[in-house]
Amino acid sequence: MKVQGTHYRSIWWDKPAGVVRIIDQRWLPHDFRVVTLKTLDEFAAAIRDMWVRGAPLIGATAAFGIAEQMSRDSSEASFDAAYDVLHATRPTAINLRWALDRCREALMPLAPGDRAERAWSLAQEIADEDVEINAAIGRHGLELIKDIAARKPAGEPVRLLTHCNAGWLATVDWGTATSPMYHAHDAGIPLQVWVDETRPRNQGALTSWELGEHGIPHRYIVDNAGGHLMQHGLVDLVITGTDRTTAQGDVCNKIGTYLKALAARDNGVPFYVALPSPTIDWTVRDGVAEIPIEERDSMEVTHVMGVDGQGNISDVRVTPDGTEGGNPAFDVTPNRLVTGLITERGVSEASADGLARLFPERAGSHFV
Amino acid sequence: MKVQGTHYRSIWWDKPAGVVRIIDQRWLPHDFRVVTLKTLDEFAAAIRDMWVRGAPLIGATAAFGIAEQMSRDSSEASFDAAYDVLHATRPTAINLRWALDRCREALMPLAPGDRAERAWSLAQEIADEDVEINAAIGRHGLELIKDIAARKPAGEPVRLLTHCNAGWLATVDWGTATSPMYHAHDAGIPLQVWVDETRPRNQGALTSWELGEHGIPHRYIVDNAGGHLMQHGLVDLVITGTDRTTAQGDVCNKIGTYLKALAARDNGVPFYVALPSPTIDWTVRDGVAEIPIEERDSMEVTHVMGVDGQGNISDVRVTPDGTEGGNPAFDVTPNRLVTGLITERGVSEASADGLARLFPERAGSHFV
Repeated sequence: MKVQGTHYRSIWWDKPAGVVRIIDQRWLPHDFRVVTLKTLDEFAAAIRDMWVRGAPLIGATAAFGIAEQMSRDSSEASFDAAYDVLHATRPTAINLRWALDRCREALMPLAPGDRAERAWSLAQEIADEDVEINAAIGRHGLELIKDIAARKPAGEPVRLLTHCNAGWLATVDWGTATSPMYHAHDAGIPLQVWVDETRPRNQGALTSWELGEHGIPHRYIVDNAGGHLMQHGLVDLVITGTDRTTAQGDVCNKIGTYLKALAARDNGVPFYVALPSPTIDWTVRDGVAEIPIEERDSMEVTHVMGVDGQGNISDVRVTPDGTEGGNPAFDVTPNRLVTGLITERGVSEASADGLARLFPERAGSHFV
Repeated sequence: MKVQGTHYRSIWWDKPAGVVRIIDQRWLPHDFRVVTLKTLDEFAAAIRDMWVRGAPLIGATAAFGIAEQMSRDSSEASFDAAYDVLHATRPTAINLRWALDRCREALMPLAPGDRAERAWSLAQEIADEDVEINAAIGRHGLELIKDIAARKPAGEPVRLLTHCNAGWLATVDWGTATSPMYHAHDAGIPLQVWVDETRPRNQGALTSWELGEHGIPHRYIVDNAGGHLMQHGLVDLVITGTDRTTAQGDVCNKIGTYLKALAARDNGVPFYVALPSPTIDWTVRDGVAEIPIEERDSMEVTHVMGVDGQGNISDVRVTPDGTEGGNPAFDVTPNRLVTGLITERGVSEASADGLARLFPERAGSHFV
């Protein structure tokens, strides 16, 4: 999407220059920096040290890292070494493994002399596929927004609320929850987006940055505010992303999503979740009962990072010295609170039947 | 309650020394400072600049300020001047006006020579009355906690969740929502308190400080976490305070309270609100429809205050430069989500009938 008026992806192959460029996200939302990745070590550092983040973007970055290495040495030993280096950066990232395995399957059967060219085109395909999945999510979500806009007086904005950053920075482009917003904005529908701060890591600041750079009107609110706004008719539609969706449509997403879903239900506000189908975990049904929730570092809760009075990025401790924070990172929103799931194949009811209708080739195989 | 092992009130008359002392709350939770108030100007500054905060404490501080002034000059002109100076500090604070009017009614009929002594005893009475109201709230709330403890295996803590700081720092002692917790702890019932951060002003840090100093086990959590904790059976009871309670038992409290009440209802967790009866507004019934919600400064949302790496209290900006924050300060929890109201006269159903049974002399008079 746009930054300072220019269209960017979060990663791109600058073919004439023969290099891959990324947005170094460590400095966002405070500083926009594009860096060039030129060696396998640089690709590995970019993933490991979170210059890039988000499952699809990590996968694409790994694929470009393989391509870079294949240009230098296309032997099987070189591939295996690169695979290991990249896989070790964030070993629990599913997309990372998936992208690397896909590279191996595509490249190893080829003659060594053909591998580099194919590796580059494959990395580009992986990136393009992510863009197309998210664009499709956006087109389907756009229809929901159009329906709401059609029921409003002309010129009155559709008011959305989102939680966390399911934005283009976590993908190659468009994002998931944000894709319908970008599509609607680009289609000329006036929007007003309430951006949840999303404590403890304040990813709402990234969403604010994205929306601001693309020109979408928005306001940053504390996570406490959404219920009040819905009570007073100030939210037409909630769209969030998801880290993991169960086969029955329960949604595991950033902590606090469940509270917004409760408020939406209590006030008759539609609550949609945008997701690329690879995030559906067909092996899990009851998300609250079955999904273990990661407990993260107490310091994420007791300290807050930002820009200080001197313009430096630093953190402050909010609590008394020694206070222990509790920090569950995700929660599960039961399907009964989810109005619908926006996938690349269309909008589905949040239920086993709804998902099975959209993905008949996947559904059910795990519960025989 | 206790600080560093010693019992404190938030304001007290040190009679031997002939001065009033307060905890200067501007530095909490990071620094505990007791200061002496010796002149009318100092009392006025303490209220105006929020060295003290919370309606009951503001009222008591004003009454002691009057007493101080009466010791210097007990004429009616002197009283009137002091009244005006103190009243101007925070003109919208109901308790401030109430305390000053009570002083006028008690003192002006007396001979000037009798006024100072009476002013001091009256200020002490106002402070003591607040302590007794909150202690009574604590005794009634203690029964609720005892009932939960009785259903648990011996030694297993009762797990409470609270939002904002309805603590002793906002009163003269005990606090409102915290009073049942202090009573239970002092009665030997093991507790574990989840303290909501309470963005944007992070009053949870004050609650953490209070509980920590008094020795009550607790953990500080982001406002997003409570729903997840309730889903997993980790909260036995929610107790919050309230800024204003309507005649039908709707509760206007710090923004985000409503979301916790929704989660409590969804998970069968009892949700109680502790309140001294003066916070009941008998002129309002439907809180969501009738109570205007204050919209506060955007910077409270976009910036966070804490202690930096050098030990200085400072703030950081979390959002991109120029991001506009939305900042509604309170929300209304409808009575249908409130299990009960803990008042100084006992526990009431959150309804017009429930409140009328406890306060028959007040209820109904406004809706004839």
